[in-house]
Amino acid sequence: MAVTQFNPTCQKTHFHSSQLSFLSRTLPRQRHCSFPAIRRTQHARISCSVAPNEVQVPAVKAQDPKSKPDCYGVFCLTYDLRAEEETRSWKKLINIAVSGAAGMIANHLLFKIASGEVFGPDQPVALKLLGSQRSIQALEGVAMELEDSLFPLLREVSIGIDPYEVFQDAEWALLIGAKPRGPGMERAGLLDINGQIYAEQGKALNAVASRNVKVIVVGNPCNTNALICLKNAPNIPAKNFHALTRLDENRAKCQLALKAGVFYDKVSNVTIWGNHSTTQVPDFLNARIDGFPVKEVVRDHKWLEEEFTEKVQKRGGVLIQKWGRSSAASTSVSIVDAIRSLITPTPEGDWFSSGVYSDGNPYGIAEGIVFSMPCRSKGDGDYELVKDVIFDDYLRKRIAKTEAELLAEKRCVAHLTGEGIAVCDLPGDTMLPGEM
Amino acid sequence: MAVTQFNPTCQKTHFHSSQLSFLSRTLPRQRHCSFPAIRRTQHARISCSVAPNEVQVPAVKAQDPKSKPDCYGVFCLTYDLRAEEETRSWKKLINIAVSGAAGMIANHLLFKIASGEVFGPDQPVALKLLGSQRSIQALEGVAMELEDSLFPLLREVSIGIDPYEVFQDAEWALLIGAKPRGPGMERAGLLDINGQIYAEQGKALNAVASRNVKVIVVGNPCNTNALICLKNAPNIPAKNFHALTRLDENRAKCQLALKAGVFYDKVSNVTIWGNHSTTQVPDFLNARIDGFPVKEVVRDHKWLEEEFTEKVQKRGGVLIQKWGRSSAASTSVSIVDAIRSLITPTPEGDWFSSGVYSDGNPYGIAEGIVFSMPCRSKGDGDYELVKDVIFDDYLRKRIAKTEAELLAEKRCVAHLTGEGIAVCDLPGDTMLPGEM
Repeated sequence: MAVTQFNPTCQKTHFHSSQLSFLSRTLPRQRHCSFPAIRRTQHARISCSVAPNEVQVPAVKAQDPKSKPDCYGVFCLTYDLRAEEETRSWKKLINIAVSGAAGMIANHLLFKIASGEVFGPDQPVALKLLGSQRSIQALEGVAMELEDSLFPLLREVSIGIDPYEVFQDAEWALLIGAKPRGPGMERAGLLDINGQIYAEQGKALNAVASRNVKVIVVGNPCNTNALICLKNAPNIPAKNFHALTRLDENRAKCQLALKAGVFYDKVSNVTIWGNHSTTQVPDFLNARIDGFPVKEVVRDHKWLEEEFTEKVQKRGGVLIQKWGRSSAASTSVSIVDAIRSLITPTPEGDWFSSGVYSDGNPYGIAEGIVFSMPCRSKGDGDYELVKDVIFDDYLRKRIAKTEAELLAEKRCVAHLTGEGIAVCDLPGDTMLPGEM
Repeated sequence: MAVTQFNPTCQKTHFHSSQLSFLSRTLPRQRHCSFPAIRRTQHARISCSVAPNEVQVPAVKAQDPKSKPDCYGVFCLTYDLRAEEETRSWKKLINIAVSGAAGMIANHLLFKIASGEVFGPDQPVALKLLGSQRSIQALEGVAMELEDSLFPLLREVSIGIDPYEVFQDAEWALLIGAKPRGPGMERAGLLDINGQIYAEQGKALNAVASRNVKVIVVGNPCNTNALICLKNAPNIPAKNFHALTRLDENRAKCQLALKAGVFYDKVSNVTIWGNHSTTQVPDFLNARIDGFPVKEVVRDHKWLEEEFTEKVQKRGGVLIQKWGRSSAASTSVSIVDAIRSLITPTPEGDWFSSGVYSDGNPYGIAEGIVFSMPCRSKGDGDYELVKDVIFDDYLRKRIAKTEAELLAEKRCVAHLTGEGIAVCDLPGDTMLPGEM
């Protein structure tokens, strides 16, 4: 058991925005869009796939260029949604920030968002891509592919490495970016290195994002990253922060369907309790198949108790063996599911899992951590916790274990949440197979 | 200039189905779904992520298992679309075969199809994934990720390496798979190696696919691969075969938008003429911006004549430099665009580009080749060529060049189209940058 102490002041030694801004200035210069782009902060960094002197005056009536945010390529160009029959009735543009935007999960997710699959066919979107110093060229490649896709709903794309710039006015922040675990690195080390990123991003959200921004943390360890993020964003409701456990829920549904011999659309009411780690609890007590309790349909209770959870958790590892890559496509589908669960009403009688702030939960789970629990939404971006769930000793015992782990993780990042000196007494390696 | 002769009989020396089947038998055995799967041909190869003895009797009323095709994992399980309110009104399931299914383009495309983004929210789909001996494990990984995504519309997934099995009853065949060009390989060599694959796949489509299957060839050299494919499928209308030039069209629209300083939704009527190679002709004479001829809006005609085409063609190469990978995401978007252009009515006054069989074309282009031309569709899967296009000497001259190239490619694959002995007198390297 590793015990490590971190100094509360060390959180600023990495990834501070002014430092990234300095790095940005040492990069080879990019061509800039000089015509509609207004630099809104000193950290602004925009680039363009056409030089200003190649661009003619717009042939069609355009919006006031001063209202245009920083931009990439064709997305620097002005447009007027009110001028066309088919776009006049569209909703107001929303800003969606994505970190780790040059990675494979984002490479699936961004194109789903841009196509209208996530937010609907009348919701224009602006994508704000956050990458790292190393990935800035790749981010430009992503932006170029978005240009070449001609998505009608995708109206603005900007790229950058400074969260204080990229998160400006974000209404959604999908935080995928995280450092992978290096050789020999313990979970405490990973918590610290990624925790610093998420502390910085929480501060940036607090400073510049929409006051009602919804945040979904995907980068691991996602529960505690989400906790760090929300603690560094005191002006944003803690309820707005989510840690992604939806892929675990989806995998659990698939395994229950396979075991019961039914198609997966018959499986409902599956909760993932707790941490996105090997202590997580896929709940077969409350889950239903075709409306019946799982334990009535799957009579092999030994399988439920001894194999089911392992099958769910080993899925990522098996996939890496088969496919040679981690599950970018299905992870991005589960992010879409998580977003859509918040913006569409939850079907009657069902619920979805999300890692949310535990304050005020009705289950007796410790407060002050980000814990995956069953949620319902009216489709307004908000959610409420489901009250009518049952517990037995077996479920309680497992929930207590994942709760203990999350409390230990919390102690381990106290220096990043403003709660004093960190003390790391984490149990063994609980990273899920196939994840870094 | 390379002159190579191929023996007409050499087409069967690679990739013959019986050979693949033999290879299949030498593979480590997979677990098989014994319960609903019926082996319909001797080449059937199915695998399952749950062992039969782990599966209980379905708890819900199921379809007759004998009607179930070969399957993967959870997709082996039965379902009844008539039993539920929300699925009762759905259309009849369609079979969509995808070759190169373990590759990156397919990894984007399959999830788009499964989500309903391509064929609509009431169209259930069966995905039939064709891979190679080498990629069979990766195919299982793709199928696992599709399982974990719980797409309501995705009802069946099967994987295999024998096109005679995988193409069974296919209503769409999206042919992405192709061998990359090896070091020092000339275009004639690439035409031969990939032509043999496409000859085999044409024969398989002819033998087992739906009589009205729509085929979109993406694997390069896609025009001549499509020609080989259709010549080997005499019982399927030649009109049903397409070579993908939609990414070129999309890139051309984006570059015209950038140059004109307008958003890309203002650009219409863009034709890519001819081959998907550097002889292709992005047509700025007929293209329109906000309804006006491009040449009236972009007054820099020197740019149109001397830089525009190169900008479109170099896009893939620039992307590889930036991003380190080829344009899988935007290619898959353009395949979606190509499909949707055939199943939704073309907007009034506009058209789309597709490489189609040139017999009976109204432009005076040589018959018997697959040539990209402007098309319109009523949304029934079929298309007609657009008549009201104009030509000038400049456009005619460039079209003649790409036509000559396609006729040379045709002579070079005569051994694969049943037209005698191949003679390869291809001009220099005309592969597009960033493509293999």
